[in-house]
Amino acid sequence: MIVDNALYHQGKRVPLGPGDDQSLGSARVPCDPGDFQWIGIHDPSPDELELIASTFDLHPLAVEDAGDSHQRPKLEHYDDTLFLVLKTLWYVDEEDAVETGEINMFIGKDFVVTVRHGEGIDLAASRRDLEQRAKVLEHGPMGVMYAICDRVVDEYERVGAALEVDVDEVEESVFSPARTDDSNRIYVLKREIAEVRRAVMPLREPMRRFATPTEGLITAETATYFRDVADHLQRVSEVIDNLDVLLSTAFDAHLARVSVQQNEDMRKISAGAALVVVPTLIAGIYGMNFDHMPELGWTYGYPFSLLLMVGIAGGLFTWFKKSGWL
Amino acid sequence: MIVDNALYHQGKRVPLGPGDDQSLGSARVPCDPGDFQWIGIHDPSPDELELIASTFDLHPLAVEDAGDSHQRPKLEHYDDTLFLVLKTLWYVDEEDAVETGEINMFIGKDFVVTVRHGEGIDLAASRRDLEQRAKVLEHGPMGVMYAICDRVVDEYERVGAALEVDVDEVEESVFSPARTDDSNRIYVLKREIAEVRRAVMPLREPMRRFATPTEGLITAETATYFRDVADHLQRVSEVIDNLDVLLSTAFDAHLARVSVQQNEDMRKISAGAALVVVPTLIAGIYGMNFDHMPELGWTYGYPFSLLLMVGIAGGLFTWFKKSGWL
Amino acid sequence: MIVDNALYHQGKRVPLGPGDDQSLGSARVPCDPGDFQWIGIHDPSPDELELIASTFDLHPLAVEDAGDSHQRPKLEHYDDTLFLVLKTLWYVDEEDAVETGEINMFIGKDFVVTVRHGEGIDLAASRRDLEQRAKVLEHGPMGVMYAICDRVVDEYERVGAALEVDVDEVEESVFSPARTDDSNRIYVLKREIAEVRRAVMPLREPMRRFATPTEGLITAETATYFRDVADHLQRVSEVIDNLDVLLSTAFDAHLARVSVQQNEDMRKISAGAALVVVPTLIAGIYGMNFDHMPELGWTYGYPFSLLLMVGIAGGLFTWFKKSGWL
Amino acid sequence: MIVDNALYHQGKRVPLGPGDDQSLGSARVPCDPGDFQWIGIHDPSPDELELIASTFDLHPLAVEDAGDSHQRPKLEHYDDTLFLVLKTLWYVDEEDAVETGEINMFIGKDFVVTVRHGEGIDLAASRRDLEQRAKVLEHGPMGVMYAICDRVVDEYERVGAALEVDVDEVEESVFSPARTDDSNRIYVLKREIAEVRRAVMPLREPMRRFATPTEGLITAETATYFRDVADHLQRVSEVIDNLDVLLSTAFDAHLARVSVQQNEDMRKISAGAALVVVPTLIAGIYGMNFDHMPELGWTYGYPFSLLLMVGIAGGLFTWFKKSGWL
Amino acid sequence: MIVDNALYHQGKRVPLGPGDDQSLGSARVPCDPGDFQWIGIHDPSPDELELIASTFDLHPLAVEDAGDSHQRPKLEHYDDTLFLVLKTLWYVDEEDAVETGEINMFIGKDFVVTVRHGEGIDLAASRRDLEQRAKVLEHGPMGVMYAICDRVVDEYERVGAALEVDVDEVEESVFSPARTDDSNRIYVLKREIAEVRRAVMPLREPMRRFATPTEGLITAETATYFRDVADHLQRVSEVIDNLDVLLSTAFDAHLARVSVQQNEDMRKISAGAALVVVPTLIAGIYGMNFDHMPELGWTYGYPFSLLLMVGIAGGLFTWFKKSGWL
Repeated sequence: MIVDNALYHQGKRVPLGPGDDQSLGSARVPCDPGDFQWIGIHDPSPDELELIASTFDLHPLAVEDAGDSHQRPKLEHYDDTLFLVLKTLWYVDEEDAVETGEINMFIGKDFVVTVRHGEGIDLAASRRDLEQRAKVLEHGPMGVMYAICDRVVDEYERVGAALEVDVDEVEESVFSPARTDDSNRIYVLKREIAEVRRAVMPLREPMRRFATPTEGLITAETATYFRDVADHLQRVSEVIDNLDVLLSTAFDAHLARVSVQQNEDMRKISAGAALVVVPTLIAGIYGMNFDHMPELGWTYGYPFSLLLMVGIAGGLFTWFKKSGWL
Repeated sequence: MIVDNALYHQGKRVPLGPGDDQSLGSARVPCDPGDFQWIGIHDPSPDELELIASTFDLHPLAVEDAGDSHQRPKLEHYDDTLFLVLKTLWYVDEEDAVETGEINMFIGKDFVVTVRHGEGIDLAASRRDLEQRAKVLEHGPMGVMYAICDRVVDEYERVGAALEVDVDEVEESVFSPARTDDSNRIYVLKREIAEVRRAVMPLREPMRRFATPTEGLITAETATYFRDVADHLQRVSEVIDNLDVLLSTAFDAHLARVSVQQNEDMRKISAGAALVVVPTLIAGIYGMNFDHMPELGWTYGYPFSLLLMVGIAGGLFTWFKKSGWL
Repeated sequence: MIVDNALYHQGKRVPLGPGDDQSLGSARVPCDPGDFQWIGIHDPSPDELELIASTFDLHPLAVEDAGDSHQRPKLEHYDDTLFLVLKTLWYVDEEDAVETGEINMFIGKDFVVTVRHGEGIDLAASRRDLEQRAKVLEHGPMGVMYAICDRVVDEYERVGAALEVDVDEVEESVFSPARTDDSNRIYVLKREIAEVRRAVMPLREPMRRFATPTEGLITAETATYFRDVADHLQRVSEVIDNLDVLLSTAFDAHLARVSVQQNEDMRKISAGAALVVVPTLIAGIYGMNFDHMPELGWTYGYPFSLLLMVGIAGGLFTWFKKSGWL
Repeated sequence: MIVDNALYHQGKRVPLGPGDDQSLGSARVPCDPGDFQWIGIHDPSPDELELIASTFDLHPLAVEDAGDSHQRPKLEHYDDTLFLVLKTLWYVDEEDAVETGEINMFIGKDFVVTVRHGEGIDLAASRRDLEQRAKVLEHGPMGVMYAICDRVVDEYERVGAALEVDVDEVEESVFSPARTDDSNRIYVLKREIAEVRRAVMPLREPMRRFATPTEGLITAETATYFRDVADHLQRVSEVIDNLDVLLSTAFDAHLARVSVQQNEDMRKISAGAALVVVPTLIAGIYGMNFDHMPELGWTYGYPFSLLLMVGIAGGLFTWFKKSGWL
Repeated sequence: MIVDNALYHQGKRVPLGPGDDQSLGSARVPCDPGDFQWIGIHDPSPDELELIASTFDLHPLAVEDAGDSHQRPKLEHYDDTLFLVLKTLWYVDEEDAVETGEINMFIGKDFVVTVRHGEGIDLAASRRDLEQRAKVLEHGPMGVMYAICDRVVDEYERVGAALEVDVDEVEESVFSPARTDDSNRIYVLKREIAEVRRAVMPLREPMRRFATPTEGLITAETATYFRDVADHLQRVSEVIDNLDVLLSTAFDAHLARVSVQQNEDMRKISAGAALVVVPTLIAGIYGMNFDHMPELGWTYGYPFSLLLMVGIAGGLFTWFKKSGWL
């Protein structure tokens, strides 16, 4: 579905003729030098992709990739066109889960084609924001690319922050005195961290490359902007790595605490058993059938034996309490 | 066994003379410049290899390797000839197992020799498919190599996807409440992942090298094709690495759950034991032989004692239930 | 808040005109070649940052970073200006915790702007110290940068030493015969070590770069100074890495000792149980109702049976003691 | 001990004069250009080494190394002479152990000195084999070096294959239902794998270097041979790495199975205990001394009580069987 | 403390004038070209360091480092002077511990200053040895540096060998049938190995650099000597790495054996308990008070019951023995 289609001249949106027709029919608009056209598509049909590919003369292998939403992030050069695949990430609070989408971008001298798969970043809103920032739009197609990468990476940072909260919760749960089975939670978090890493890591190289001015597309000023994105990306990747290590350590601590707990439980159980087994022995003794057992004939022999049981059990109880077994 | 033998001229198969004789006797066919000959062999006998080696003037060390089906993937240059060893992988659903075969390729200026060991990719079918795609065949021997690598790597991706399903199953089993002994399954999967990695990793370097145009064999267009293969290979290798890490984490979680389970069982057992041991003590007490035990003379002493046992056991049971021990 | 503002001429502080007005109004002071101005700010308001940015013509992206106290350490070049982000660390004895702050520095040809976030290093004191060392101040803005980096890294070394003491304590606790649950302490220490690492690691590259003389800002003599800082940084990072490895090993040892302890406890408990259960069997035997049991009729049958119980229990006790079960 | 001493001319052995005197006295034989002399020594005495060193003008540090059988594999250049240290490995079936020896080689323009320590590769047999292959000997001293490296690395592959069998056995043992204590076996295998790695790893760099033609000693054809050796070495090192990882995984699985086993045993034991403890309670109840216990007076009270015990025990047994506790 | 002070001319010690005054007053001796002076100090006072620094014009930062005995090994260039920090290691048999000291060296064109901290290598003895080897001394200051590095690294190898013995002992203890708590020993060894690594690793780079001839200080011949040191250093570092890995594996094996031991103990205890509990049930049965229990009236009822108990216990014992539970 074509979401938007516009021409930009010196950082400003230019109406696409009288009816401002945004249908694909008028896709390729003749540009003055320095102007560029930006088409945004969402979950495109093969036909739409085909039409756009022929209009902007895109390489078939890149178009094939753009139609598939399971690419890994990458940057490729096809003659004069850059092809960038980005993973979008966002955190769904209700499910404590990280969701992923994908944005593909074709960047030419005088055009940008953005292809979005799935939910996530609202590119239409990004475009509206960007249209307020003529200074960025003046950088042409690379300015659009910067603006989108910046938004996507900002979202990464938000996901990183949300995962930090999750890890804090796991940590608290692991070290709480309650019996908790945290291994499932830790596993799920590790899976999500791995997903974030798969989105973040392969993007670092392209962003770093854009952060160096090259005679072609990237001016010194554009490079400064991309250096900022690369720096944020680096920050996210360090946060993520740190969380991963913390989770591993927390998992080990969880294992250790299960063992310690097991030991404590075993000692409590044994102490409890002793409180029953020792009186049973006493009862056994007074259940023996010897002819001559003086206690049996005592008037208060029975209460005496009960007191003996209670007394010994009480003594054991005090001793266990003092030595930390109960 | 010689499977097929044909001459290709401008992307089209050319009959090898009147009887279209595909026997090895007519192995070396005089080619016009730009034409190439493609011979496919399967599980060759030493004699067949010897004959082909002398026909196409292949290096003895490469021929020795081609006769052995336990090579590691590699690319070697012998004067004008490239020698590529590929591992083929496929997933056998019935056994949840990854099987391996091997393809060796000799690529010269005007010939391709493919030597297949074991099952796996059906090279004859690949050839028939390829013969429909004149555009690829026009790239000559490197086009054939691309087509085969592309097929093999596609199969890798299918294997990767099948392993992802297996890992999901293991994960589910680990975190299911049922008692499962997942260590064997995890071990087998790790072994298979290691096997896939041994096929995938050494192939990345050659594919990346082909992805750069060089004046000799590889044109800019061919390079673009190989870049696509290299990209898929990269994707497979990331999937595989990710599965390996997930399995390790799942294994740790399995260990933790066994410990937690152990602890729960121990507490259940102890609680169960208490339900028997405490009534035994009461029975012991009323089995004592004191002369003066008033309860013994009561008319309802016996039912009273039984009620006492049941009552205490019931109380313990409720208490254990509430505190989570039963 | 502007903390200090001064002009330095040949390594000496120069009064900023009559009244020595340090308010921001007189921010940019005309300098002779070789002189430089140094402004120090603490937790700046956006307005203060804005004013300074326009006065010294700082790049907006760097100013944005300087206003945020959650940067990672980094060095960036903006035209003629260096922008350095440092993490300050200090150890709070009462809480056994490492605290972090941040210093941002803008270094130009003839000015230094230091922006401090949070507590930690007292930059005003550092400045007073530095004003006594004309030899360092003569190196101009890079001399100031050296002096601050040197102080910050000295503090890192102090933090490293404090963590070494903490790790020694953990180690002692792990190997003490007492039952200790060290996993929480180890986890917290690992978190703190990770925090120190995040401050130290990214700083190494910039310091190493300054340690090589370049025709621009860094003379051979300045480089020697920075090499010293880089060397200390290297030392801290090795201390930290070593502590991390030691903690992991100590954690493993903790796990092993919990297991060994569990085993010892189990054997002690079983031995204790035997001391009760065996006499219970004897009591059970003499509680049997056979008509012909000679012992029952003995005058000293009862004491005999008690002695038997005590004797067997004593024998078992000695045996368990000797075989290490009690 | 001098084992053999001969001159080679155009790939053929030349008698060393009338008596074909192979004693060291006639050590240095005048060679035509292109000829070379090959002396083989085994466990040399210091005097023999001294004599050879002065005859061939070898560097004292290399000679010192050659006299010591605990070197690590390495390649060193001393002026015109190459000095190569190789570890020989072989597998002793009876002990399931890997043994190591050492070969030192001095390679000059017109001589080869091989110094063997310990058992292992039979260099005399290698020489006899080589003397049949004039094509290799024609490459001169580097041909000899290739032949020996090739033999040594072939032996590595045999050791690798034997270790694979051992690891398969361990794997089977770990996952067999029998109780096995595999940690010792795994430890020993890991030690041996480490030993193989210490022999294989440092050799890769020299072999790779020889695999590139250089104007000096190595022609394009010699390089092809060494590339083959380097390739086999790479294969061995991958096999070894893979085995090491498999063993670690097998060890983890062993640990997991011990835990699972422990849990199963505990449940079996508890179920078994219940079968005894519950009837004991019943016996205790009918051992109580109440005046009014109707069952006691029943004619078949005793068999009834026994049946009750057996019945309850049987019921428990069935229940435990069904729920997997027995 | 100045330990020695001498002039060397063509590899021979030259008396420092009449009386051969070695006090510091005559520190700087005028040298002919090619001669050099060597001063050795031990645990210097700040004044001594100051005096030497001014005499030989040493850089203040290097002098500061030389006065501190907690440096990490490093090589630094200050103008014409090299500054090398070495850690000395030695093994104290009585305590099974590795001790560390430090040597700092200043190497100029015509002087060597060695500063030793702590015990360890006896530099005075090294000097006496060296004075016998004119060939090494002829290399001038770099010859002295080589000789000292060689001695220090030889000592490293001795420490490595001693640690190998310790690890062998641990290994034996882990796999002995005795109950051993090896985690403490393993931890201490790992700490010591880490200490050795911190001494060895940073020295490799400087030694490797000296192993390449450079036009300045290092001739081809000197380089050969340092290559030998670098090679030994490499050997030590591989030994140490290997020991570290072995200890980790041994630790894992220790953990596994504790678990296996636990399981065996549990089964033994349960079997033992069965031998008591089953007879107790029998005693309980014959303690029941049924009116009609034929056995009770038998003349040999009592011995029969005892035999029954012993018989059943014996049967159980045999069964447990056979099934490996006892």
